[in-house]
Amino acid sequence: MSELTQAPSRAWEWLGLTLAETAEGTAVVEMNPTEDMANHAGFVHGGMISTLADSAMGRSIRTIKPGVSRAASFDLKLNFIAAAKIGETLRATAKVVHAGRRTVVAECRVEGKDRRLVATASATFAITREKE
Amino acid sequence: MSELTQAPSRAWEWLGLTLAETAEGTAVVEMNPTEDMANHAGFVHGGMISTLADSAMGRSIRTIKPGVSRAASFDLKLNFIAAAKIGETLRATAKVVHAGRRTVVAECRVEGKDRRLVATASATFAITREKE
Amino acid sequence: MSELTQAPSRAWEWLGLTLAETAEGTAVVEMNPTEDMANHAGFVHGGMISTLADSAMGRSIRTIKPGVSRAASFDLKLNFIAAAKIGETLRATAKVVHAGRRTVVAECRVEGKDRRLVATASATFAITREKE
Amino acid sequence: MSELTQAPSRAWEWLGLTLAETAEGTAVVEMNPTEDMANHAGFVHGGMISTLADSAMGRSIRTIKPGVSRAASFDLKLNFIAAAKIGETLRATAKVVHAGRRTVVAECRVEGKDRRLVATASATFAITREKE
Repeated sequence: MSELTQAPSRAWEWLGLTLAETAEGTAVVEMNPTEDMANHAGFVHGGMISTLADSAMGRSIRTIKPGVSRAASFDLKLNFIAAAKIGETLRATAKVVHAGRRTVVAECRVEGKDRRLVATASATFAITREKE
Repeated sequence: MSELTQAPSRAWEWLGLTLAETAEGTAVVEMNPTEDMANHAGFVHGGMISTLADSAMGRSIRTIKPGVSRAASFDLKLNFIAAAKIGETLRATAKVVHAGRRTVVAECRVEGKDRRLVATASATFAITREKE
Repeated sequence: MSELTQAPSRAWEWLGLTLAETAEGTAVVEMNPTEDMANHAGFVHGGMISTLADSAMGRSIRTIKPGVSRAASFDLKLNFIAAAKIGETLRATAKVVHAGRRTVVAECRVEGKDRRLVATASATFAITREKE
Repeated sequence: MSELTQAPSRAWEWLGLTLAETAEGTAVVEMNPTEDMANHAGFVHGGMISTLADSAMGRSIRTIKPGVSRAASFDLKLNFIAAAKIGETLRATAKVVHAGRRTVVAECRVEGKDRRLVATASATFAITREKE
């Protein structure tokens, strides 16, 4: 749920999210989970993985043409596949699967060390396109 | 993805999650979103709402009998309904919908001020039951 | 994905779906699974349960005010909880959780014999409201 | 929810599902939607698309090694992207994304005429592996 400016949001800064790569229809976002993000078992809290995936998907839809002036996710789905460790860089690769006039569907893969698959995700966004 | 001890996890402390109520099959968890949790539009980042819901559902499954010694969510689904404001207390009410021998399904409603519905969620957990 | 007329659709007739109850914001739809709907294990194919839930949720949104002239589901999520038997009446109770101007979120419970919970579901619909 | 024999199930026959291609970790299943599958708007009922996707994903997990003797989906998620027409061949390409000891995650794309994207899907299955 964000107006799409270019500077990182407060949440991105706080969580240490960084944009590693971007191209039309894709975005790769990284996070280095800190001790603060640990769940009871000492692994990364699922919600943090969910946040990373949501952020990468939200970022990927800024790359489409014609541009998107406003976007709000109304649907987010995660499949958790493997536990992620504190300190292990997590890399979320998001891809726009469908870009309509009013909705966008994106998918995401979250990988840990040695490209181990940690989670997959999908999301739907309600968007407003920029005037041309 | 957590072993189920009683003290709050690091992530709960960091995010300011508090257990407001609990009973067999339910848990109510609250969060006061800080400025750090803001997205570009100045509202609460969807990932934070997702984290709150996941936490409440994870907590709700600790309440079932016979007890659960280990639990890992492998599926998390959010429907975002209304934007949440920084500073507005968010209240997640989670309920166990089905408790099997190896899996549990939980649902959650996240409400903001004046019980405005902010999001609904569901999740599936793989569990190990305690020996009796 | 349907214009919302009152007669049953071809699919409803073919699948034997019947509207058991309706009120503002809710609809109860029933199906008697036939041998044709059996999967390899001899239970009801998950897709048929999914179809029943989708139908009940789609029907529930016809009941809101102001009325809905067009609706298209763009998101459907099922949690399968127990196998359903051929011949066992399945009853899907759908409820509108949120009715916005352009989107509606619905939830559904599918129950079998003796109200055994078979599945839960949620869906999001893009809608057009009737002019008043 | 099926024991995994090789002959088509009753539901596959009834719905006209055919296996077009298969390889380790993937399966392509086709369906020619009949008039019986029409919703009110005259397009293919979303539940039928859901059934096709679920079937293709269930079929894909039969291809992994070591083999799967039993499988039950407990989670199914659809994103509907474009309406599908009666008579238009629908092609569901399913892929195993993660194959663990007890769970499998699969994804699926459903395409219509000219490879137009109709829906995407994901599912999680609880499995039992064959003894070696």
